[in-house]
Amino acid sequence: MNAEIIAVGTEILLGDIVNTNAQYISRELANLGINVYKQEVVGDNEERVLESFKNAFENSDIIITTGGLGPTPDDLTKEMAAKYFNKELVLHKESYENLKKFFDKGGRELVGSNEKQVYFPKDAIVLKNDHGTAPGAIIEGDNGKKIVVLPGPPREMKPMFDNYVVPYLKQFTDSVLVSKVLRTFGIGESRMAEVVNDLIVNQTNPTVAPYAKDIEAILRITAKAKNEKEAEELIKPVEKEIRRRLEEYIYGEGETSLENVVGELLVKKGIKIATAESCTGGMVAEKLINYPGISESFLEGAVTYSNEAKMKRLGVKKETLDKYGAVSKETAREMAEGIAKAAGADLGVSTTGIAGPGGGTAEKPVGLVYIGVYYKGSCLVKEFNFTGDRNRVRVRTTMSALDLVRRTIKE
Amino acid sequence: MNAEIIAVGTEILLGDIVNTNAQYISRELANLGINVYKQEVVGDNEERVLESFKNAFENSDIIITTGGLGPTPDDLTKEMAAKYFNKELVLHKESYENLKKFFDKGGRELVGSNEKQVYFPKDAIVLKNDHGTAPGAIIEGDNGKKIVVLPGPPREMKPMFDNYVVPYLKQFTDSVLVSKVLRTFGIGESRMAEVVNDLIVNQTNPTVAPYAKDIEAILRITAKAKNEKEAEELIKPVEKEIRRRLEEYIYGEGETSLENVVGELLVKKGIKIATAESCTGGMVAEKLINYPGISESFLEGAVTYSNEAKMKRLGVKKETLDKYGAVSKETAREMAEGIAKAAGADLGVSTTGIAGPGGGTAEKPVGLVYIGVYYKGSCLVKEFNFTGDRNRVRVRTTMSALDLVRRTIKE
Repeated sequence: MNAEIIAVGTEILLGDIVNTNAQYISRELANLGINVYKQEVVGDNEERVLESFKNAFENSDIIITTGGLGPTPDDLTKEMAAKYFNKELVLHKESYENLKKFFDKGGRELVGSNEKQVYFPKDAIVLKNDHGTAPGAIIEGDNGKKIVVLPGPPREMKPMFDNYVVPYLKQFTDSVLVSKVLRTFGIGESRMAEVVNDLIVNQTNPTVAPYAKDIEAILRITAKAKNEKEAEELIKPVEKEIRRRLEEYIYGEGETSLENVVGELLVKKGIKIATAESCTGGMVAEKLINYPGISESFLEGAVTYSNEAKMKRLGVKKETLDKYGAVSKETAREMAEGIAKAAGADLGVSTTGIAGPGGGTAEKPVGLVYIGVYYKGSCLVKEFNFTGDRNRVRVRTTMSALDLVRRTIKE
Repeated sequence: MNAEIIAVGTEILLGDIVNTNAQYISRELANLGINVYKQEVVGDNEERVLESFKNAFENSDIIITTGGLGPTPDDLTKEMAAKYFNKELVLHKESYENLKKFFDKGGRELVGSNEKQVYFPKDAIVLKNDHGTAPGAIIEGDNGKKIVVLPGPPREMKPMFDNYVVPYLKQFTDSVLVSKVLRTFGIGESRMAEVVNDLIVNQTNPTVAPYAKDIEAILRITAKAKNEKEAEELIKPVEKEIRRRLEEYIYGEGETSLENVVGELLVKKGIKIATAESCTGGMVAEKLINYPGISESFLEGAVTYSNEAKMKRLGVKKETLDKYGAVSKETAREMAEGIAKAAGADLGVSTTGIAGPGGGTAEKPVGLVYIGVYYKGSCLVKEFNFTGDRNRVRVRTTMSALDLVRRTIKE
């Protein structure tokens, strides 16, 4: 089965945004064993969109579009799909009720232009949008061809694709691809690939593929089999071998995140945590609090960017700051211990560093960071030298702090 | 002049990498006043690449390709361009010498497959690769059509495009496109589009286009003229009219962000700020600290997720928490005032709310948020009802808090 992915949006042709949706959908289709013949981006223009549909169906059985489902006249993907298949647009009651509820909740009136979002080609399978107002749809033509229209924003498109489109597409594939994802932190993608290179090169079923995502390195094991159970059996021994080589770095598997894993560990073990942040400026606390159950464990966070705040809030000594500076092993130690004691927490984690772009010296360059973890009366401080811009340094520091907490409490 | 951007690479169709090159080239072409008709990704397959060239030239005068210039048999972009224009491939001496030097330097022998990289269609303009081994080329057909072939890795492609392709393209443009972006917050994309709908529909030069990015709504005014100055003159009256209607919501223009605008305002006015966060868990502080100059203004942040921390750190009264709850106007007020006084700041900003997924009640549903801003002795508290998942509610709360600070101090 061939598929073509068409993004509809003049803003992509103007270079305003990167078309990350195409990558996401391509990878998911590959997992389903569906061949992507082409990716395309076309402007918000009736003729061009129709022309793209026509051309794509010369080689493909299914078109998946992203974008152009919104309330403005520029949004015309659904309309062109209807036109291509010669179907009229009809109001979808359930979607209308959902949209109305959404507007009522926000205290706003549902105006005409918004109603456009809940009209669909007759007989279309409407796909609920769990993260926005524009539902998607699967439109099946009399000629056996199909157009799946999805919203443009990735946070709306991805769950819709996973929850509603993947189950639909499965009927067209006679084998299943099952993937298992192992997530690592603290080892680069290329180093990780080296360690398991023989598996990457020699394995054909399952395959082993490394990839980098933000600042973590991920290994995906993918098996092809008649059913899920067989695929899982194929994966097992390979996973075991990978874990033997990389166990230290693997923090989780599947759809999770370092902050979720740390949040779960903290709550499960009943450990109370407090944070003291300088260069990360609240990002460590913010990540932890992203874990819904964290209120049982998170006591308090202090963002102490200035020296005054470090002394006043955390009890960092003036002599320490004078002698070693704010970015030092000693300050990180006093910060971690200081917040743990001030908050009455079991564990205190601290960050201090030079995120840049200014503030670096020959002795203490931009990217120098100290992370402290105080736990059960002793304090571990680690030094890092990160590369990248201000935001990158702060994100790396945050993730490294979470990983250090994970390693400290995992036993 | 119309252009089409074609990425050649099966790895993109498999979803292994995101096609960021298309965005880069699109934006640069827009700046040159060259219209991008389509972006496309095609696999490493002779027929399909030729077919794409043929189709693209039906609407476009120039094709810009990325990828497929390397030494392997899969790399076939240049070869297909030669075939399309019916030109033979000849060795380019200068490129050969450069390649040989590169291999000598690495102590390696130049083997046959690598020589493939320095063969080009006859009469092609060869583009030096300052960051890799595969040069690019501009190939002009007898029919006036042009194919520009560029390497796939962005760090090779970008400088080649800037240094050699842009100067070449300038001869074909007698006009420039100048865009001005106005960024708004606090008004949805559809509501904003309604307010300026007559301008969107009736304006042709400049054009006015709305779009949504994360949780802000953006308006782009784009004028076409002989030179930049003329284009700017065309933009002025339209911008003035838009500002007249939307002034309250416009927080900045061009490449900026709400946190940068707030950071700049704080530093420029010498206002000292402190933050007290519950549901946002440090995100407000984290955003502010993303602004590099903020250390002059940011005194301290408190992440007080628990009631104990709210009382201990911020002096929120037990009676207030008992009577009104942690998520209430009254608590938000005491938090904002409490952190301002504890930190000795001019301005204190607080957030408290129910981010979900749990914790909601009929009276206080998920998404209910209070934001407080204490400034110069008085405190403003606003109530919000946000929709979306936990992260969305937290991001919206954070951005709304920054916007409330902006509105408070902008006069």
